[in-house]
Amino acid sequence: MRNKFDMQLDSLKEQLIHMGELCEIAITKATEAILEGKEEQAREVILADEEIDQAEKDIERLCLKLLLQQQPVAKDLRQISAALKMITDMERIGDQASDIAEILLTAKLGKAKPNEDIGVMAQATAKMVTESVQAYVDQNMMLAKKVMLADDEVDRLFEKVRQEIIDYIAKGNGEEGAEAIDQIMVTKYLERIGDHATNIAEWVEFSITGNHHGAQAIHDREKAGE
Amino acid sequence: MRNKFDMQLDSLKEQLIHMGELCEIAITKATEAILEGKEEQAREVILADEEIDQAEKDIERLCLKLLLQQQPVAKDLRQISAALKMITDMERIGDQASDIAEILLTAKLGKAKPNEDIGVMAQATAKMVTESVQAYVDQNMMLAKKVMLADDEVDRLFEKVRQEIIDYIAKGNGEEGAEAIDQIMVTKYLERIGDHATNIAEWVEFSITGNHHGAQAIHDREKAGE
Repeated sequence: MRNKFDMQLDSLKEQLIHMGELCEIAITKATEAILEGKEEQAREVILADEEIDQAEKDIERLCLKLLLQQQPVAKDLRQISAALKMITDMERIGDQASDIAEILLTAKLGKAKPNEDIGVMAQATAKMVTESVQAYVDQNMMLAKKVMLADDEVDRLFEKVRQEIIDYIAKGNGEEGAEAIDQIMVTKYLERIGDHATNIAEWVEFSITGNHHGAQAIHDREKAGE
Repeated sequence: MRNKFDMQLDSLKEQLIHMGELCEIAITKATEAILEGKEEQAREVILADEEIDQAEKDIERLCLKLLLQQQPVAKDLRQISAALKMITDMERIGDQASDIAEILLTAKLGKAKPNEDIGVMAQATAKMVTESVQAYVDQNMMLAKKVMLADDEVDRLFEKVRQEIIDYIAKGNGEEGAEAIDQIMVTKYLERIGDHATNIAEWVEFSITGNHHGAQAIHDREKAGE
C-alpha cells in the first residue's frame, strides 16, 4: 500500500511537470513571437509569466508542508530539497522568456532578418527544460546527464550567433547594428535558459545520488577562463 | 495613540528600506567588480542575491498577514498592495545585478577597456532604486516622479553605449567583438534595472493616488514603436 508521503510526492511531481510545461510554452512562444514579429503573442508570454511565478509559490508551499509534516530523511529529503531548488531555476526561465518577448515590444528587431539559429536554440532549450523535469519525475540519471551535455551545444550556438553578428557589423553594417545587437540579446537569454535547465538537471543528480557537481563544475569553468 | 496597523506598516517600511539597500549594494558592487575585474566581489554579489530573495519572502509574508488580519481599505490597502508589487521588481533587480556579476566570471571582459558610461549608469540606477523606496516610505509623489524621469537618462545612456560599441566593431575591431558585446550586456541589465525602479515608482504613485499609469505608459511606448 502506498503511504501518504508517496501520494504527496506524486502530487509534487505533477505540479513540477505542469510548471515545466508552462516554461516550455513560454520559451517556444516568445521565440516564435520574435521570429515572426507577433506582438500580441509576446504580450501573452509576459502575462503568462505570472502563472509561472504562482506555480513556484504553490510548489514551494507543498514542499515546505512535506518537509514539516513528514520530516523526510535520506533520499526522500533530497527529493524535496531538489524540488525546492529546481523551481527557483524554472521561475528564472519564465523571467527570461518574458525578457525575450519584451525585446520584440521595445526594440528595433522588425526589419533585420533573424539569425536562423535562434529557432534552433529555442527548440534545444525548451527540450532541456522538459527533459530535466522528466528526469526528476522518473529519477532518471541518464536523462539528467543528457540535459547537461545538451547545454554545450546551446553554448556553442550562442557563441556562433554572436560571432556571426559581430562579423556582420564589422563588415560595415553599423547602421543596422542596434537590430543585430537585439538578436544577440535574444540568444543570450536563451543561453541563460540553458544554464538554468542544466542547474535543474544537477539537482536531479543530487536527488538521485546525493552528490551535487554543479558548484564544482562552475568553479572548473571559471578556472578554465570560459 | 498609534494603532497596531500603523506600527506594522512602519515595520514593513523598515524592511523595504533594508531590501532597497541590499539592491543598491548589489548594483554598485556588481558594476565595480566588472569595471575593476574583481572576481571575488562578483561571487559575493551572486551569493548576496539569496539574501534579497529571502527579504522578498519575509516582506511578502508580512504583507499577507497585514491584509488578512487588518483587512485594510482605501489608502491602507493600496499601500500594502503596492509593497507586494514593489518587492517583485526589487527581486528582479537583485537577479539582474547577479547577471552582471556573472558576466565577469564567464565572459571575456578582462582585456577591453570598459566604456566609462557603465559606471555612470550604475550610479544612476542605484540611486533610482533607493529613491523609489524612499518615495514609498515618505509617500512622496515628487520623488516618485523624479525616479520616473531619471529612467529617460538611463535609457539614453544605454543607447549611447550600444551605439559606441557598434561603431567600434564596425570600424574593423571585430576580433574584440565578444568583449565589446559583453559590455553591451552589462548596460542592458542596468537598463532593465532602471525599468524595474520605474515600476516601483509607479506603484508608489498608485499607493498615493490610486492611479497606476504604468500599464498605459507601456501601451503608449509600444504604440510609439520605441
